[in-house]
Amino acid sequence: MPFFPAFILANAGEAAHVPLVLLLVFGTAKVFAEICERFGQPGIVGEILAGVLLGPSILNWVQPDQILIALAEMGAMFLLFRVGLEVRASELFRVGKTALLVAVLGVALPFFAGWIVLAMEGAGRIEAVFVGAAMVATSVGITAQVLASKGWLEHRASKIILAAAVIDDVLGLLVLAFVSNLAKGHVDVLGLTATAVLACGFTLIIAKFGTRAFQRVVPEIERNVSTKEAQFNLALILLFGLSLLAVYVGVAAIIGAFLAGMAFSETADRRVQDLAHGTSELLVPFFLAGIGLRLNISDFASGSIIVISVILLIAAALTKLIGCGLGALTLGRGDALRVGVGMIPRGEVGMVVAQIGLSMGVIPGPIYAVVVFMAIGTTLIAPPLLNYAYRNCAPRAAEEDFTLA
Amino acid sequence: MPFFPAFILANAGEAAHVPLVLLLVFGTAKVFAEICERFGQPGIVGEILAGVLLGPSILNWVQPDQILIALAEMGAMFLLFRVGLEVRASELFRVGKTALLVAVLGVALPFFAGWIVLAMEGAGRIEAVFVGAAMVATSVGITAQVLASKGWLEHRASKIILAAAVIDDVLGLLVLAFVSNLAKGHVDVLGLTATAVLACGFTLIIAKFGTRAFQRVVPEIERNVSTKEAQFNLALILLFGLSLLAVYVGVAAIIGAFLAGMAFSETADRRVQDLAHGTSELLVPFFLAGIGLRLNISDFASGSIIVISVILLIAAALTKLIGCGLGALTLGRGDALRVGVGMIPRGEVGMVVAQIGLSMGVIPGPIYAVVVFMAIGTTLIAPPLLNYAYRNCAPRAAEEDFTLA
Repeated sequence: MPFFPAFILANAGEAAHVPLVLLLVFGTAKVFAEICERFGQPGIVGEILAGVLLGPSILNWVQPDQILIALAEMGAMFLLFRVGLEVRASELFRVGKTALLVAVLGVALPFFAGWIVLAMEGAGRIEAVFVGAAMVATSVGITAQVLASKGWLEHRASKIILAAAVIDDVLGLLVLAFVSNLAKGHVDVLGLTATAVLACGFTLIIAKFGTRAFQRVVPEIERNVSTKEAQFNLALILLFGLSLLAVYVGVAAIIGAFLAGMAFSETADRRVQDLAHGTSELLVPFFLAGIGLRLNISDFASGSIIVISVILLIAAALTKLIGCGLGALTLGRGDALRVGVGMIPRGEVGMVVAQIGLSMGVIPGPIYAVVVFMAIGTTLIAPPLLNYAYRNCAPRAAEEDFTLA
Repeated sequence: MPFFPAFILANAGEAAHVPLVLLLVFGTAKVFAEICERFGQPGIVGEILAGVLLGPSILNWVQPDQILIALAEMGAMFLLFRVGLEVRASELFRVGKTALLVAVLGVALPFFAGWIVLAMEGAGRIEAVFVGAAMVATSVGITAQVLASKGWLEHRASKIILAAAVIDDVLGLLVLAFVSNLAKGHVDVLGLTATAVLACGFTLIIAKFGTRAFQRVVPEIERNVSTKEAQFNLALILLFGLSLLAVYVGVAAIIGAFLAGMAFSETADRRVQDLAHGTSELLVPFFLAGIGLRLNISDFASGSIIVISVILLIAAALTKLIGCGLGALTLGRGDALRVGVGMIPRGEVGMVVAQIGLSMGVIPGPIYAVVVFMAIGTTLIAPPLLNYAYRNCAPRAAEEDFTLA
């Protein structure tokens, strides 16, 4: 548009940024989701690949800037909140013992696998231990999205995955605290105990008493409030508040979001579910594409980095599959496979651990790229494997929110 | 938490940012909305005041950073999209002639008033003309939110306000282009004509043919798409696309968002309306609080700045009230008052004009603060005035989306 007054173009640059990024990321994600579904692949794989395409790896049209990172974080929070709305805390406590075993085995195996792989590559002890710690935390968002969209959340294996993912996050926090202590040269037992008590206490108290507290308090507040959509606004405030508390006690914000949803599950009416669905429909593609945006293929120029990346990816997938599968083996091989596959995806938590190692100077830059590759790789392989593992499970009508347009 | 491992607190800082800002802004906005409603004032006044409280003026807890500005922009887009969904283009064309007169008088009077006030204060010609240009554009978001939430959108005066606001935005663009030309020392007639043709063409084409095009194309695409919530996703893509196009032709993104909603109004099913409602419930408080966040009371330390701010605020309110009211006088005094009051709020567009003047060096810093004060002041006085002007109008059941929780 050469005839265009210069001041308009100059200002269009900044004014166009938000709608441009929204259109590019959301639009590409949805187009790729459609393409993947046509080829019988889960749509979310397409949404992650859309991020890879738009990001520094290929087109470099979109940078993961502050705005996109915030939208991605909000997407993950709303996704887990919505999944929490579908889950009753009592059901998770019922599978608690199995979930604990799944989580413990699913933390131990990847931790030692990461340690051993790096040690065999000649890395130092602290570096190897840090990579092990980065392999630990399952990122339940991807699995939750597949289970929710296919109507499989009501399945027993799904409950175990969700409960185990919460425990896994607390264990991951402790592993990180421990290896950070190691890197600093002394193990602060008092500090570690305090971290453990705080994280476990927060999670257990919200899970155990949240539902009853919300059932009592929310209708009371609703009656006394004159603004519209009071219940939805209250739900959002509790969602943000518990996400923040979760970060303060040291676990991921999405664990707080999940607990908020679960605590609301017996209180939320249909209207709140619909409104929350609208927000997550808008925001979740930013979470998914945001994963792909973090990958930069040019980090993998050297042959040795590619080899170690592939080995670590295979180790990451197999150790969760075997560790978590073993933990759930008493439920039969079908459920063991479902649980094992569902726990494979890693995510931001692993990248954050690697970033801490990077900032402490115990992990070199290329190894950080390897961890990012591992996180994105596990995220991409999980959805098709989940489709396979759950192929004989009927979707539940209760999930019509997720399955019908 | 002094016993807390240092690495957790260090990382909690960054990880906590998004949930903390969401909780602070959304939570405070909703609490203040409730307080205002208790005192018989519109809730949105409270949400703007929440921004003033949290921002640099008082507590300085929240800065209008990239993330908040983006959320505010998205809030405005979704608000206007949702309002557009309730409006049929044919109804706006029916009131087109009146709306044109309302818009023209409502642009001319504030422009000359701003010019004269500044000239009387001893400002130079270019500076005075720029302030006049910053007084021109009505920001229809505030009025739209009041009309939508009270169920008054179906009223004839409301249709005129919406149509006039769209025309007003195009006229505002032309005024800005003209004064920018003046400041640069030569009037580029060809460029101005091109701007006018492009902006008018875009608006008229979408308004005139958008509805029919969407009615034909959307069901076609929906039939051929296998991803869930296809219609909502399509609506979002069109919303972002038209907002972006609007910015490119030079009008505000929210005008594109409004046109997208209006073009979708005959196609969107109940489900799309509910989902869009959820997103705007989440995002609109960021738009409202974001207005308050821009105010910095410390800019008004000197007596002369306070005097000129108050004079300009009164001039801004009266000239829209009288100018737009005169334009709608043929419909009777009640509707003239409603239209005049509904056109009072100024917003980002005025601030953007002042910013351009600032960056061109024709507006000094204190005068920029005066324009911001004028924009926020008109925004705060409009909602109670609208409540008064519409007090005898029954809300329409068709708006149950907005009026029932």
